[in-house]
Amino acid sequence: MMNDNRIELIPLVGFPLVHTGDDIPNLIISVFDEQSIELHSGDIVVVTHSIISIAEGKLYHLEDVEASDRAREISEEIGSSPERVEVALKEAREILREKPVLITKTQHGIITDFSGVDESNAPPNMLTALPDDPDKTARSISDVLSEKMGFKVPVIITDTQGRPWRKGAVNLAIGVAGMSPFKYNVGKKDLHGHELQGSLVCLADQVAAATELVMGQAGEGIPVVIVRGIKFDYGDGSATQILRSDSENLFT
Amino acid sequence: MMNDNRIELIPLVGFPLVHTGDDIPNLIISVFDEQSIELHSGDIVVVTHSIISIAEGKLYHLEDVEASDRAREISEEIGSSPERVEVALKEAREILREKPVLITKTQHGIITDFSGVDESNAPPNMLTALPDDPDKTARSISDVLSEKMGFKVPVIITDTQGRPWRKGAVNLAIGVAGMSPFKYNVGKKDLHGHELQGSLVCLADQVAAATELVMGQAGEGIPVVIVRGIKFDYGDGSATQILRSDSENLFT
Repeated sequence: MMNDNRIELIPLVGFPLVHTGDDIPNLIISVFDEQSIELHSGDIVVVTHSIISIAEGKLYHLEDVEASDRAREISEEIGSSPERVEVALKEAREILREKPVLITKTQHGIITDFSGVDESNAPPNMLTALPDDPDKTARSISDVLSEKMGFKVPVIITDTQGRPWRKGAVNLAIGVAGMSPFKYNVGKKDLHGHELQGSLVCLADQVAAATELVMGQAGEGIPVVIVRGIKFDYGDGSATQILRSDSENLFT
Repeated sequence: MMNDNRIELIPLVGFPLVHTGDDIPNLIISVFDEQSIELHSGDIVVVTHSIISIAEGKLYHLEDVEASDRAREISEEIGSSPERVEVALKEAREILREKPVLITKTQHGIITDFSGVDESNAPPNMLTALPDDPDKTARSISDVLSEKMGFKVPVIITDTQGRPWRKGAVNLAIGVAGMSPFKYNVGKKDLHGHELQGSLVCLADQVAAATELVMGQAGEGIPVVIVRGIKFDYGDGSATQILRSDSENLFT
């Protein structure tokens, strides 16, 4: 049953609770060391954004949030807390829908519900917002891990987000470093020898989705997953490349 | 480095070229036997829809397709073949956008580009359309595999589709049997002891995305992947449950 094409998703269990100011790349390295985990060349390290948001202090204390009248109105309509709506409005560059879900475009240009503002896995009485520059954070983690390992270690930072026409959220890439977020199948031939056209695949989003299967969403304490065995292009990719420009956007 | 939470994606290499009329569940079993692959209880078997479409004869010969004036107009605008547009219109229940990509709602209620009609991995000079009832096909494969193995084997059938506001396609579940397509995290507590609210995750889409990492899109000949080690709910789920109803749809 040996087979070179298999892929493994290896969760980093026993990751400590993260606090603001923590040094995430060195925390990851210390957990590798503690557990005698060795990265291999070709591994991708995937990190859930919530520990980045906490480490970088992208947190709002509920008691410091003063909900505006508008936030209160929206919150009553959609049944979410006024504080979460207030912070979501604050984090938004543009508001796309208020009902049945608050959908915004964030400062990063990400279109998502509640600007990515979340109550789960935040410290008590706090909300987490998305990191200010997840691509930059991914690069800094990738740089530290690559330096330590002696080979390039790509990093993906993820968030779990809803979709406009399908139920249930899926994990997506919001920060990428050390790899292209895409696979281009153009120019390859299929089983029957056809040239394939236009088959751009978002590899980074698929890797993110795969890792949520081990991360879980709730209380399992697995914020970091190693993905081993996939084919990808090393390169200076970013998650920003995944976002459609306004003219290409099929939603707004 | 042992750890019970790891997940494996095991591609079924050496799958034969599929022809119309082939018995897919028994083909899968014969490849398992040839390669001494043993399914474990808890494994999910994921199958790309293209071999289902071929086996079920959901194929259009290019020479039999007569492109209408409308199909020709759309095809000129968007640079796709008139035959592909014609078949996409024929397979559509509703046309949502013509530009910059033809987006339709299919007979199944799936919103996707070109109604899922594809030139890649079709036999020469043919187009594949989506299977008529991928949930039913998933159930029939699940039934045969479960009977053979003596335990329940959930099955997911996939298609790779674009997204409205993110570049690059991702693999999704269009047929599900023997499991719920969702994980409900409601009622769980997060790391800090909060009850999580409303965290419905589309497990089946995440599993589909993960398997595309090994299936590839082009010519790799890996239409079947075994997913081992994930937590899911057995049950009478279907991919139809993933589709938002018109009133919940945030796109149309």
